[in-house]
Parts: sequence; structure tokens; C-alpha cells
Amino acid sequence: MTPMAFVHSPLDRKANHRSDAGWLQQRRAARNAKFIQVHGDAVRMQEGKLAVAAPASAETPLVFLGEEAGGTPWFAFAGNSEGEMQALRPLMVGGALAPAELSILAQARSLVHWHEKHGFCAACGQKTEMSDGGYRRHCAACGADHFPRTDPVVIMAVQHGGNILLGRQKAWAPGMYSAIAGFMEPGETIEQAVAREVLEETGVVTGAVRYVASQPWPFPSSLMIGCIAEAVASQITLDEKELENARWFSRADVRLMLDHKHPEGIHASHPWAIAHTVISAALQ
Amino acid sequence: MTPMAFVHSPLDRKANHRSDAGWLQQRRAARNAKFIQVHGDAVRMQEGKLAVAAPASAETPLVFLGEEAGGTPWFAFAGNSEGEMQALRPLMVGGALAPAELSILAQARSLVHWHEKHGFCAACGQKTEMSDGGYRRHCAACGADHFPRTDPVVIMAVQHGGNILLGRQKAWAPGMYSAIAGFMEPGETIEQAVAREVLEETGVVTGAVRYVASQPWPFPSSLMIGCIAEAVASQITLDEKELENARWFSRADVRLMLDHKHPEGIHASHPWAIAHTVISAALQ
Repeated sequence: MTPMAFVHSPLDRKANHRSDAGWLQQRRAARNAKFIQVHGDAVRMQEGKLAVAAPASAETPLVFLGEEAGGTPWFAFAGNSEGEMQALRPLMVGGALAPAELSILAQARSLVHWHEKHGFCAACGQKTEMSDGGYRRHCAACGADHFPRTDPVVIMAVQHGGNILLGRQKAWAPGMYSAIAGFMEPGETIEQAVAREVLEETGVVTGAVRYVASQPWPFPSSLMIGCIAEAVASQITLDEKELENARWFSRADVRLMLDHKHPEGIHASHPWAIAHTVISAALQ
Repeated sequence: MTPMAFVHSPLDRKANHRSDAGWLQQRRAARNAKFIQVHGDAVRMQEGKLAVAAPASAETPLVFLGEEAGGTPWFAFAGNSEGEMQALRPLMVGGALAPAELSILAQARSLVHWHEKHGFCAACGQKTEMSDGGYRRHCAACGADHFPRTDPVVIMAVQHGGNILLGRQKAWAPGMYSAIAGFMEPGETIEQAVAREVLEETGVVTGAVRYVASQPWPFPSSLMIGCIAEAVASQITLDEKELENARWFSRADVRLMLDHKHPEGIHASHPWAIAHTVISAALQ
């Protein structure tokens, strides 16, 4: 099993059933049903474990996440329980939750966040209502339907002459370097987005692009698309608004950085992030 | 050059400059600036060519698309000019526009459509204003920023024992079959979305997934992610709400269908769609 976080969901989303309110009600009433409570970046924990109790009010809107093999339905809902909420990132880093639980949380956090930030119709400004088990919001005023966002992001290890280009943002932990990344825009391919982002942030011109892997990243709702890009020249012209630094590292350096053993004290992304996967793939 | 549509943009998006209103104003005033007028699925044409005149009012909000090599800036704006608007799909099929023009139009149509459908803040319901050359809408009432959507869609040729699984929707032209496809959801990988969509629509269980290519699809703002998936069994259980039919075709049949030479009169997707690319890749 890859150590990448958020990619091990055991749930069957049962998407064909989600528009059936009666079916959803029956699943909600199942004795083994589990309910995740989310607030912003945080999730409700109890005694070091994921809390799975139903919301206090039967009126609380529920997002249907799916069913585990054997038929355990999972739901998510928005709510703050003081003193019991824990941020998702430290839970990911700390290893308190099983890979399957973290993956279910990724889905829950993205969907609940979308509902929290989309209570009004972007087309007419009136209030919208959750529908289809949380996969639609409907505006009764103008009839518009709105669907959850999934924002594709390209993230890439750039290679040239045996070296690998990594960058660092000012806000990151000291010594941390990672793969270049950026949001895709309307009207471009994955390969064009890779070239554009590398050029914008580092001035490096790239050619061939190879897809490596993907990862949902629930801060709040990205789809990370991991690639390797071949640079056609090594000259760096930094965009200092985006990056504090970008450097070409030898493959030996990058290996030490991934293992947190580099003599300069610098290091590369942790295994739970797809950056680690694409940088490792570039070393193959 | 691949015959796929929408993937040949000649524009440098100059994303680093888009938040600079003075720079945008200067580009807008350039004597060689070009302006595309979009309304819904349609674009303004004049005498069989793409119309590129500036909007009548200097107050019309403009989306900055980018610059051609040599420095020609391209903009897009919303507006209907009766009798001069032509739908984008027939223009794509008919070949009246150059691949570069079609690709610029894909970007223009997705962005203008997003502005047309997102005039209000989804967080608080108040009116929002276009910003950053069209790549942001800002809500002065609550401070929220909103960014254009790009909706990832997986589209895949499914293989098993030398055969290829294709489906058809009731609304399609008679005899037309294509690759299975569907919108990605929050919290899943590309590979998981491929497996989920194939299972939901056809009941076929798949294993390994290979990425082939990507394509922006501006109806209204999809990112098509083209893959090949290996089925682990061939049993089909159709979801009749999604598909009218799904069939396993031999490789010889699929070749004839791509060439519009199949004796049954059935055919597969046209070369301008990524479905053609992934089906062709499955034949290699």
C-alpha cells in the first residue's frame, strides 16, 4: 500500500442511489451507520479515535459518503464541538488515524466545506438547499443546480541533465523543498498547465510531460495531478511572489532530502504528499 | 499535430501580470488587441471568420486570455449580436476555424460562461465583481474570493481479452458509440474515479488504469482526463439512466467504427474528441 494519504477509501459511493431520498433515509437509520463531524479543517475526535455518533438534531443536513463492504453507511455533517475538534493535517502527519479513515475524512472535509461556503446561488443570490445526499445544491428561486467543486492542480518534478528542480515557498518549514505546483485554468490541458506553471514560477522552459499519479488533497478540494516534466534548459528566473527559492539538485542530493539526511539540513516532501511520489518517480 | 480540438492554444496567459490593472489597461489599448464576443455556447463571427472587434462600450468587463508570440493580446467578453452568433460545436465540426482559434475560443467560452453564471457570492448572496483580468470574482460584502471552475472528467476505453467496451447515450446520434465518462468527485483519485464510473454505468469491474492524454472541453468547463482501464471480468449490468447500451467490440470492429466503415452502420467518436484518442490508444 502506498504511504500517500487520502487515497485508500474503502467506500462504495453508491452514486446511483443518492437522488433517492427514501433510500438515503433508510441508510441513515441503519443501526451501524457512522457520522463524521467536520468544522473547517477540523474533525471531531473522541478519546483519540474518530467520533462517529449521529448529530444531535435529526434536521442536520447530512452528506452521504458511501458504504463500506458489508454495508456500513458513512455520513458527514458540519458542526463544532468545543474541545473535541482536531485539525486534519496534524492527524495525517501524526498517524493517529488509519489510512482508510483519513481517506474518508478527505471526502467528508471537501464536501462539508463546499456546503459551508456555498449556501447561496451564484447565479441569482438566493438561498440554496442541499440535495442528492450532498452532491448537489438546488436554487428554488431560479432553478439553478450547483455541484461540488474539484479543483485540478498540476504538481511536477522537473528534470534536466540528471538534476531535479525543486522550489520552496516562504511560508514552509525551514529547509523544506518540494515539487512545483499550481492550479489548472479553464481551456488548458494537463501538459500545458505543467509547462505554464513551471515557466511562471521558475522561468524554466519544459518539453515532454509524463503522468505519474493523482491524489485528492482536501485543503479544501484539490485534485493533485502528479507529473514529471523534462526541461529544455536549466536557467532559473524566480517569481519571488510565488517562491522564495528554486534550485536544481543532484539525484544524490534529492535522495538524501527525501530521507531527511541531507548535510545542509534541507529536506523534501513527506511520503503522505504526492510531491514525494513524483520526486521519487523522477529518481527511478 | 493531433486533430484533437481545443489543445492548440498559441497564447501565453501572462498569469503573473493579470492582477496589475494598469498593465491590463495598456494591453487593452494596444492597436493590435483582439476581442472575442461570446454568448452561451455561441461566438460572434463575421463573413465566416472570427470577429475580433472591441466591445462598443469601454465599460464592458473583459477577460484577458493571453498574448500571441509577437505581442498580440486577446480578450473575451459576454454579449449577444443578433444574426452574427454561431454555436461553437458546429464550428468545431465544420472546420471553419483554425485549431489555434478553436483553442482560444475554448478558454474564452469557459471563462465568460463562468462569469455569466456567477454574478453573486455563493458564501453570502451579494453581488460580486470581476477582478484579475477575469480569473477572480471578489465579494465586497463579505470579502470572499471566487475562482473559475475547471471540472475534471474521466473518460476511458475499457479493455478485456482483446475487446473494447464502449457505450452510447440515448441523446447521441444514431449508431454512435463512445468511451465511458463521468465527472470526478471530491476525495477520489483519477484511478478511483475511472473504476467508479465504469462500475456505475456498466457494472464492469476494472483493475489497472493508464493515463493517455487530456483535453479541455468547454461545454462549459470540463477537463477531460483520458485513460485506458483493464477490466477483470466482462459481465455488463447497464445503468439505463446513464446509458442506452454498452457493448464489447472486437478491435477489428472498433477500427471500422473509428473509420465510419462498420457494416452495422455504427461508428465511434470523431477525432476532435479525446474519446477518439483514448479508443485509438487502446488499439495500439
